[in-house]
Amino acid sequence: MIKTNSEIRVRYAETDKMGIVHHSRYLEWFEVARTDLMREIGMPYAKCEELGISMPLLEAFCKFFKPSLYDEVLTIEARVEKMPRASIVLNYTIFRNGEKLTEGFTKHAFVNSELKPMRLPNFLKEKFVKYF
Amino acid sequence: MIKTNSEIRVRYAETDKMGIVHHSRYLEWFEVARTDLMREIGMPYAKCEELGISMPLLEAFCKFFKPSLYDEVLTIEARVEKMPRASIVLNYTIFRNGEKLTEGFTKHAFVNSELKPMRLPNFLKEKFVKYF
Amino acid sequence: MIKTNSEIRVRYAETDKMGIVHHSRYLEWFEVARTDLMREIGMPYAKCEELGISMPLLEAFCKFFKPSLYDEVLTIEARVEKMPRASIVLNYTIFRNGEKLTEGFTKHAFVNSELKPMRLPNFLKEKFVKYF
Amino acid sequence: MIKTNSEIRVRYAETDKMGIVHHSRYLEWFEVARTDLMREIGMPYAKCEELGISMPLLEAFCKFFKPSLYDEVLTIEARVEKMPRASIVLNYTIFRNGEKLTEGFTKHAFVNSELKPMRLPNFLKEKFVKYF
Repeated sequence: MIKTNSEIRVRYAETDKMGIVHHSRYLEWFEVARTDLMREIGMPYAKCEELGISMPLLEAFCKFFKPSLYDEVLTIEARVEKMPRASIVLNYTIFRNGEKLTEGFTKHAFVNSELKPMRLPNFLKEKFVKYF
Repeated sequence: MIKTNSEIRVRYAETDKMGIVHHSRYLEWFEVARTDLMREIGMPYAKCEELGISMPLLEAFCKFFKPSLYDEVLTIEARVEKMPRASIVLNYTIFRNGEKLTEGFTKHAFVNSELKPMRLPNFLKEKFVKYF
Repeated sequence: MIKTNSEIRVRYAETDKMGIVHHSRYLEWFEVARTDLMREIGMPYAKCEELGISMPLLEAFCKFFKPSLYDEVLTIEARVEKMPRASIVLNYTIFRNGEKLTEGFTKHAFVNSELKPMRLPNFLKEKFVKYF
Repeated sequence: MIKTNSEIRVRYAETDKMGIVHHSRYLEWFEVARTDLMREIGMPYAKCEELGISMPLLEAFCKFFKPSLYDEVLTIEARVEKMPRASIVLNYTIFRNGEKLTEGFTKHAFVNSELKPMRLPNFLKEKFVKYF
């Protein structure tokens, strides 16, 4: 398993008129955590794209337990729990001072620069395989 | 069942460097469709909130079949398939010229203005019950 | 002069915890109006980019007179008041039922697909020159 | 003068199909820097709002010199150069490794919780006056 933690501070622009963070922003935070995880395993996602590989979403899910508020500092835990093959699944849990606010997952394909699906490329496989 | 259609045109700001719409924006579009559905049944969501009731998300899910692109005109179908009780589920399908691009759902609680959960209020029940 | 009107309905996601539309969203609306203006003159911006020309921002300004609220229907007037040369300026005014809420402008360069600045390309010049 | 520095890392969701950061996101970053500046002077903006004071925008301006890209680390300098009175102006400069990418300003009113304009409240005046 791969597991990383990212920290963010809630932006004012991320709130809505209910006074809490708008739900769509959690997907953006998952992406922040995903970026950190990819950097952590030695293959920054920006580098992936330079090498011609993108990871568009196939599915996204989010479950909201408690709202988060402006200016709070949150921890986003990202996990890859299974060795990726034709696709990769990341799981996320968001905490505020150890209290779970949100959890979710995203499932991604691997595509080339024409957005055609392909199997996990070797340069990525090498990075992931060490953890499983 | 309640079913409504909403039309949107993809904004440039909704795209990302992959050249396609960023996945987080689909949740915003689901919300546009939800707003239209609430208006259609005679209880605009803005009015709901004036009456002290909000519908924060408990869960959100989205499945992406094909990407959408800048300036495309899309149809978002929103459906309430079961009579809401302690929570409400909406299903969504996004089409481009009849081709399905995305589908998903959102599940919502009913809360008062202090964000305390409550059962479906009567003024909403009356609106929904006619469809089931 | 070129002048077009676009209509939008305020999305919930566009509000913030102050209960009004977040100021950053006005730039997104200006862009919606710009897209409509480009389509109106016969050169959709999506087509521009296919032809290798983008119009990144050099400057943006916005003045806020009155806030806009969730679910309001607004009119965005976009104007090109001078024949574009090395750059183009668009002016915008946002109205709610004839009342001015916001005004602003954006100034854009013309760049090729490597983001190198260039003069107004002929295929665009032809479209604009008819109005001046 | 008050001057603070904030650091952000560019999110994927902040890019657009031109491959660079969408211009509307700079206003969100200015807000991140503004939040940090308010915390720095001992009056976090979240606390301001609890005390019934918000600072909605009157004007916003941004000038773009060079684009910023996904995953870059940027520094946002925020400055209050004049003692605020009926309104407050903040200036911002965004740097990447010392190179200036963007500069701009925002001008804000002070309003109470009904969004009625008021003069600079004393609890804020005390914080600012030490710097001028």
